[in-house]
Amino acid sequence: MTGPACLVGVGETPYAKWGGLGGTTEYDLALRAIEAAVADAGLTLDQVDGLASFAADRNDAVFVAADLGLPELRHATMSWLPGGGGACAAVGNAAVAVEARQAEVVVVYRSLCQGQFRRFGRGPGPRRADGRPPGLRRAASPLDAQAAFTMPFGMLSPPITYAMVMQRHMHRFGTTSEHMGNVAVRFRDNAARNPRAVLGGTALTLADHQASRMVAEPLHLFDCCMENDGACAVVVTTSARAADCAKGAVEILASAQGAAGAYGHGQYVNVYVDDDLYTSGGSQVVARDLWARAGIGPGEVDAAMIYDHFTGLVLLQLEDYGFCGRGEGGPFFAETELPMNTHGGSLSEAYIHGLNHVVEGVRQLRGESTTPGPGAETCLVTSAAGVPSSGLVLGRRR
Amino acid sequence: MTGPACLVGVGETPYAKWGGLGGTTEYDLALRAIEAAVADAGLTLDQVDGLASFAADRNDAVFVAADLGLPELRHATMSWLPGGGGACAAVGNAAVAVEARQAEVVVVYRSLCQGQFRRFGRGPGPRRADGRPPGLRRAASPLDAQAAFTMPFGMLSPPITYAMVMQRHMHRFGTTSEHMGNVAVRFRDNAARNPRAVLGGTALTLADHQASRMVAEPLHLFDCCMENDGACAVVVTTSARAADCAKGAVEILASAQGAAGAYGHGQYVNVYVDDDLYTSGGSQVVARDLWARAGIGPGEVDAAMIYDHFTGLVLLQLEDYGFCGRGEGGPFFAETELPMNTHGGSLSEAYIHGLNHVVEGVRQLRGESTTPGPGAETCLVTSAAGVPSSGLVLGRRR
Repeated sequence: MTGPACLVGVGETPYAKWGGLGGTTEYDLALRAIEAAVADAGLTLDQVDGLASFAADRNDAVFVAADLGLPELRHATMSWLPGGGGACAAVGNAAVAVEARQAEVVVVYRSLCQGQFRRFGRGPGPRRADGRPPGLRRAASPLDAQAAFTMPFGMLSPPITYAMVMQRHMHRFGTTSEHMGNVAVRFRDNAARNPRAVLGGTALTLADHQASRMVAEPLHLFDCCMENDGACAVVVTTSARAADCAKGAVEILASAQGAAGAYGHGQYVNVYVDDDLYTSGGSQVVARDLWARAGIGPGEVDAAMIYDHFTGLVLLQLEDYGFCGRGEGGPFFAETELPMNTHGGSLSEAYIHGLNHVVEGVRQLRGESTTPGPGAETCLVTSAAGVPSSGLVLGRRR
Repeated sequence: MTGPACLVGVGETPYAKWGGLGGTTEYDLALRAIEAAVADAGLTLDQVDGLASFAADRNDAVFVAADLGLPELRHATMSWLPGGGGACAAVGNAAVAVEARQAEVVVVYRSLCQGQFRRFGRGPGPRRADGRPPGLRRAASPLDAQAAFTMPFGMLSPPITYAMVMQRHMHRFGTTSEHMGNVAVRFRDNAARNPRAVLGGTALTLADHQASRMVAEPLHLFDCCMENDGACAVVVTTSARAADCAKGAVEILASAQGAAGAYGHGQYVNVYVDDDLYTSGGSQVVARDLWARAGIGPGEVDAAMIYDHFTGLVLLQLEDYGFCGRGEGGPFFAETELPMNTHGGSLSEAYIHGLNHVVEGVRQLRGESTTPGPGAETCLVTSAAGVPSSGLVLGRRR
């Protein structure tokens, strides 16, 4: 039985607001999520021979393998894309590895307790985000040069920089705050049916969204995703082995990673050189490769899990991935019945750098979602827009 | 024209003792090595669409891509194996990626100015090697438990821990310091013909080796590799594109990564639970997969580039990879005519975490080595023993 690599297990720890899981560590959460995903697949830890993550994961595969007692570790790889952009790339790398028979069972995981590691409202300050001291930095680059002109004026954190993108999109295309609010409301509504969702018990109306405090104009509080403690994991294996697994296998029909031009390469969305790029999510190159490899287009997916760090960036990704034309994201979202972020997304389920969107893609195709689409057979999953990013097309195995 | 992924270009900066390249940064060296490798391939930077490295490389692919002006970055991946163990894995990952058409031209690079980043004779102290503060560590594991019993007694750095392995190997199998000295002398002799070698101008006799100061018994100074400033890079592309490249293409016939048991998983060689593992390099699982995938065995390679952080570990890897029986590494090395570390290795060319061993493998198969083997058609390249590791079998394209 040959075919594409498959997702055969998903698992997660409880998700919570920062500190809500007590004194636990990221590392412990990673182990628990991996164990849950392997159990969900009907496999045992001694069958796992690969581990993967993305974006400078702090929970080293080599230690994880030792602590879980894996008999062998035959693949340990990290996507080098930034935090938000790498979840789908990590799954894609695992798929490629098992298809090449470098390993048989690769678990992709992500665990976050970001409050423990210099985050929350802090700019990069005199150091780079990776902690490199300024005296040892690489040579000045065009990216440094533009940062030198924007950071002194307060362009320090993602909400501020993404606010500029949305402001320009509103100016150019007539997108409104209500268009963005629709995203927050719909995803919160999905979360209400999902017992894992951190904000599942808190209803949200468009009026609530409009009344919420402004974080960085035009982004209200409810336009911004949460930051959470929690971990999730997915199990990737060969098509042949997937036939033996406990639950319905989900095929990884296509994966793609990409970044293009100065915009796509930036760690932050503060490159203002090109109006067409600046008013997009920058994911067009990922979309191009992804649809070409999948052999289907946006009209042929039955569900979509769109990285939702900010409501407006969901609209821009719908444009980037071709669900609608440029500038039409707001009206499109208001009318579409495409099942989207049926777990509640980063806005209302949890912010686990989007690996939980892959988990929900699997649940949706298995028919296990708490907001099931009608017989969904294919699902798009995207990683963050505005940074080097990645995407997946998943398909229910027939 | 289909076939395995190929290495089509190699490049490096000058190599030097710490500080010998002036005030340059790791990042600048990385860019220069990449440019050199791409030029060697007869390609241009605008054809590069992937970047890869290993072991928490500090020179982020996303920034490198922006600073080099790559039009698109479609693959950016890091092997998660430790520094010494990851070079071959990074090349293997690139090969798998281009074979799966995730990218067309992937450059694998490594750049080191380790003196700038907390190294040289320091133990991990109260923090983990990855800098995680102790209060936020993962849960105690078996690896922590054994470190708690060894580190207070001075088992802090690689020479000390590897000394224990060699001491035991000498006791059990009759290996001698002269057996290790043969490795140092032969590789230094190879370096004498290599204008890039840091120690190329300094002859070494077995008497010099024996007279050199003891670092950690039984390891003399000349049993230990250098630490250097420098960078190198290799270009990996599809079989089809390799046909158009400037110089002879080298096929990546097989790649493997692996770690087994508590020994193989340890970041340091200080797990004393199993005499058979403890007196080996722990690379048997890599060797098993590598030879199986290549379809040839140790008797059928014409050259070998063996990771040489310490002379004795070369002998142990010759055993692990099946060139001789357990305990026979010393006598085997003394008699074999197999061309080995023809660049001088980490002991005498430069310590670039073994990616320079891949470079030399390419040069050897192209007939460009300064110590050419007689018509070498296949070459083994290994990454570090005693940590989770990886290997490659390369073949001259016919």
